Amino acid sequence: MTEYRAPLAEFRFVQTLFGAADDWAARPEEAALTPDLVDAILEEAGRIVSAELTPLNRTGDVEGCRFSAGAVTTPTGFKAALAQLAAGGWCGLAGSVEQGGQGLPRLLTLAVDEMLFAANTSLALYLSLNNGAALLLESCADEALKARYLPRLLAGEWLGTMCLTEPHCGTDLGLIKTRAVPNDDGSYAITGSKVWITGGEHDLTENILHLVLAKLPDAPAGSRGISLFAVPKRHVGTDGILGEPNGVVCGGLEHKMGIKGSATCVMHFDSARGELIGAPHQGLAAMFTMMNEERLSIGLQGLGLGEAAYQNAMAFARERLQSRGPGGAVAPEKIADPILVHPDVRRMALNVRAWNEGGRLFAAFIACELDRARWHTDAHTRTRSEEAVALLTPVAKAFLTERGFEATVEAQQLFGGSGYCVEWGAEQFVRDARIAMIYEGTNGIQAMDLVGRKLARDDGAMLGRFIQRMRNSLAEPDCAAIDPRYRAQLEQELARLERTTQHLLQRAKDDPAALGAAAHDTLQLLALTVYAWLWARASQSAMAGLEQGGALGEAFYREKLIVARHFFERQLPRSLALERQLASGAEGLMAMPIEGF
Amino acid sequence: MTEYRAPLAEFRFVQTLFGAADDWAARPEEAALTPDLVDAILEEAGRIVSAELTPLNRTGDVEGCRFSAGAVTTPTGFKAALAQLAAGGWCGLAGSVEQGGQGLPRLLTLAVDEMLFAANTSLALYLSLNNGAALLLESCADEALKARYLPRLLAGEWLGTMCLTEPHCGTDLGLIKTRAVPNDDGSYAITGSKVWITGGEHDLTENILHLVLAKLPDAPAGSRGISLFAVPKRHVGTDGILGEPNGVVCGGLEHKMGIKGSATCVMHFDSARGELIGAPHQGLAAMFTMMNEERLSIGLQGLGLGEAAYQNAMAFARERLQSRGPGGAVAPEKIADPILVHPDVRRMALNVRAWNEGGRLFAAFIACELDRARWHTDAHTRTRSEEAVALLTPVAKAFLTERGFEATVEAQQLFGGSGYCVEWGAEQFVRDARIAMIYEGTNGIQAMDLVGRKLARDDGAMLGRFIQRMRNSLAEPDCAAIDPRYRAQLEQELARLERTTQHLLQRAKDDPAALGAAAHDTLQLLALTVYAWLWARASQSAMAGLEQGGALGEAFYREKLIVARHFFERQLPRSLALERQLASGAEGLMAMPIEGF
Repeated sequence: MTEYRAPLAEFRFVQTLFGAADDWAARPEEAALTPDLVDAILEEAGRIVSAELTPLNRTGDVEGCRFSAGAVTTPTGFKAALAQLAAGGWCGLAGSVEQGGQGLPRLLTLAVDEMLFAANTSLALYLSLNNGAALLLESCADEALKARYLPRLLAGEWLGTMCLTEPHCGTDLGLIKTRAVPNDDGSYAITGSKVWITGGEHDLTENILHLVLAKLPDAPAGSRGISLFAVPKRHVGTDGILGEPNGVVCGGLEHKMGIKGSATCVMHFDSARGELIGAPHQGLAAMFTMMNEERLSIGLQGLGLGEAAYQNAMAFARERLQSRGPGGAVAPEKIADPILVHPDVRRMALNVRAWNEGGRLFAAFIACELDRARWHTDAHTRTRSEEAVALLTPVAKAFLTERGFEATVEAQQLFGGSGYCVEWGAEQFVRDARIAMIYEGTNGIQAMDLVGRKLARDDGAMLGRFIQRMRNSLAEPDCAAIDPRYRAQLEQELARLERTTQHLLQRAKDDPAALGAAAHDTLQLLALTVYAWLWARASQSAMAGLEQGGALGEAFYREKLIVARHFFERQLPRSLALERQLASGAEGLMAMPIEGF
Repeated sequence: MTEYRAPLAEFRFVQTLFGAADDWAARPEEAALTPDLVDAILEEAGRIVSAELTPLNRTGDVEGCRFSAGAVTTPTGFKAALAQLAAGGWCGLAGSVEQGGQGLPRLLTLAVDEMLFAANTSLALYLSLNNGAALLLESCADEALKARYLPRLLAGEWLGTMCLTEPHCGTDLGLIKTRAVPNDDGSYAITGSKVWITGGEHDLTENILHLVLAKLPDAPAGSRGISLFAVPKRHVGTDGILGEPNGVVCGGLEHKMGIKGSATCVMHFDSARGELIGAPHQGLAAMFTMMNEERLSIGLQGLGLGEAAYQNAMAFARERLQSRGPGGAVAPEKIADPILVHPDVRRMALNVRAWNEGGRLFAAFIACELDRARWHTDAHTRTRSEEAVALLTPVAKAFLTERGFEATVEAQQLFGGSGYCVEWGAEQFVRDARIAMIYEGTNGIQAMDLVGRKLARDDGAMLGRFIQRMRNSLAEPDCAAIDPRYRAQLEQELARLERTTQHLLQRAKDDPAALGAAAHDTLQLLALTVYAWLWARASQSAMAGLEQGGALGEAFYREKLIVARHFFERQLPRSLALERQLASGAEGLMAMPIEGF
């Protein structure tokens, strides 16, 4: 049985670091969001996930979802837990207040997302998809559609899904075959099959709203011919009353490596009645309005699981006695020392810890920028934040999920043989974390998005502005006392990133394969550079906290400084390898004939 | 359903590279081992594993082993498959001819081990443990014990196990509590519990021979007080006839992340009758005589699974159509191009391929040295080979299992969402590969073995001789035509390895934590350096094969050169990061108080 305690001090630390209180105080809608209220919200969220969701995590894995005659039964306890979350208003944290949501800033909902994924990723996924669907409705649907569905979704009374993928197309959505034929009443008849639909069918709520990509009869070919439709499982009258079942059936469940409590469905639409959301053929563009949010959320899956894996590994490692420390016995009264005396065990533990805490800095920075892009009063700040979000979101999705997976694997190693046995839970974290590198756009697609859409499209100008922003920040007062070693390393990394991306853009002019060949390593390098920037600021803040007797306590700041050091000493050096790899270009990769693979 | 075809050309390539035919021709016992016979053996092994073992791989995962009232039922088909392997003599390949084995060199049995692990790791483990037990008996037991058991084990009529771990001790075997009390007849009564016993109980054979570590009443404390005993499941008369059950019962099975067809047992010994193997209190030393072989075998588990994962991912990637290539459509007649047109997909595929082929070079080199250490007529060569084996075996176990796991994870990524679904088999490779980094001495223990026993004990002298050997080889005629770029890179890596290990040994004089803090990264750096040496030689050999129209065909040599290039361009650069990390020493790791974790 695993345990999980929300890292509340961590959340407070990043809020302070990024000046959240000032941002919130400046916005009338957030005036009520005092530090005390923020603490109360996070504490209550932490209490609920630990008490109600964590105990269901293993149950969900063991029981999984069951399929019978079109119906899906979720694991024992999931329905009651969801009802409890819904009753507490936890399903509508990010939704607009007018539609019954809480209207909280992303920096705050981010913390709750991390907790949910840490405690029970399978259960969290139903909510995560619902958040995405609600956001999409909010930004693209007309008022009538919003009124009918949005309050229900934000209340967790019904849940939403995203129906994109078909058997022959995941990445390449231009190939979708699902058709939408106009009915006489202005609605559409949707016909086709969708796969990998998270929460496509379940017993958690009375109704499910599917947001479905399909093609109209007059659709242009490819990705510019895709429209978006709202297709409920059961019809909903204009009075909001539930009617007959729609033409949507679940054809079965996928049998997966992990997230077994999450129902991953094959969905068949047979002249199902749907309503167009937004303009015809603009479905993919609409989908992109919520993509940034969803991708960040999936990054939080990696982070949350990394944190849960760390906590459980440490609980084990503190108790497990094996051999003596390198300098002699530390616990001579026991048969052996706790394994945390061994430097190599510490190396693994600090790796996990530093990826988690660095990931939290990175995710919080992006959330902060999301909030500023939406709400900041200064137009220049909004634009600057929008750019940061656009640039860093694919990085967050890919890098947080990779480091999250790496963290779960390393945490499993800390358990020795017990890590491989199901009852300790460490192996479930690994299995649950693995999917996050694949879905919501594979990490390879994220890397292509970065180098293609974000770097090459404007010949690196946006990245150049972000690099300049990081450089400028080093001259600001709150960065004045950054440890000179970290400052020097950061300056080297900024120069490295600049150098390698300029080389890349130059090479891409002559070689169409150059961007793809460099995509993965460029994403890694950008991530490490931004992590270095954030860790330098975090260590400066921790140093200040230590000197000024900050609210989080001496131990917290001391540990933060040790973890920062670990990042600079043992994680950042990967950038040296990345630069060398990037210098090799595409030729070697393209040399192999397809039949040679 | 997964497929697997033994990479026969690869095995031929490494045999040629390391001059196996000359070695074998020089030894009278191997005179019959003509190239044709070697090919015939490997072809037949490949045929059997593909036809008989691969189809049982998924069955084994789905059914797992079942436990009821002390008895273990293995998955459907396992018993028949083992009987078939036994009938073909495949259980005794490495055993001495006098005891009914085939007496084949390790370079040849290595290939068969890889195939077995690739096709069906769970089934292969019963054989692998049996090989270890047979080797231990052969090297340490008296003639009477050998005569009673060894021919049975080598024939696969009975199987052997290794019973080391107890609930409170895995790494730290000095803590074991299992007792051995002398009986009047010269035998011993063994009492205690052992865990993680692979094949501790099963229905594959009539009898099982447990090799058990236990303490005699007068045993000194710690690891110098451990003795080794042969404890059969059923008594065996001096006439070889099976008698009554011994006092050994299986208390249950572990429920594991993977290798579900392998019975991992809790074993209870209650005054079980056992016989001492070797001298009292020398059990751990005896165990070490077979440790090198077993550790190399577990490395082959990583390699085999990496190869199987690669083959299946490529079968998928060649068929999967999604988007167009970077330079335009490659298959315009289809709805999209096969995903292997994309540079980032090629990057992943070549990563997997290069780790596999590099791992095969490395494992084969060690096997060759094992054979020379045992059989070579020149004493100096034997010593040199013994040193190479001692130095590189922990590296092989750790590095091959890590790269094998990495390969299975990357191969799974190539499948996209299908990689996460059980029916494609990619996720089983990941789960089955994960354990190899943990058992047979965790990879952390391997790294400590390297820096503690192999490096620090003689102040780096043995490593110095091996580095010199690699340097000297560059001056030999068969290395004359190595690509100058690879030669230059290799020379840099040799200097880096020398530099970092010298710094480390210096630092270790003052800091007891220095070795442990550097263990992991030093192992990685040594591995990459030896890989670079072997890849330089392999590319030179491939170039020669291309120029001289070698027997493996033009395509083989061309692909080998592309894969070699990939290693130098995109895998070897990790050494830059490792050197930087190693420069940071132990201080940062040791700074965190245990309660801070």
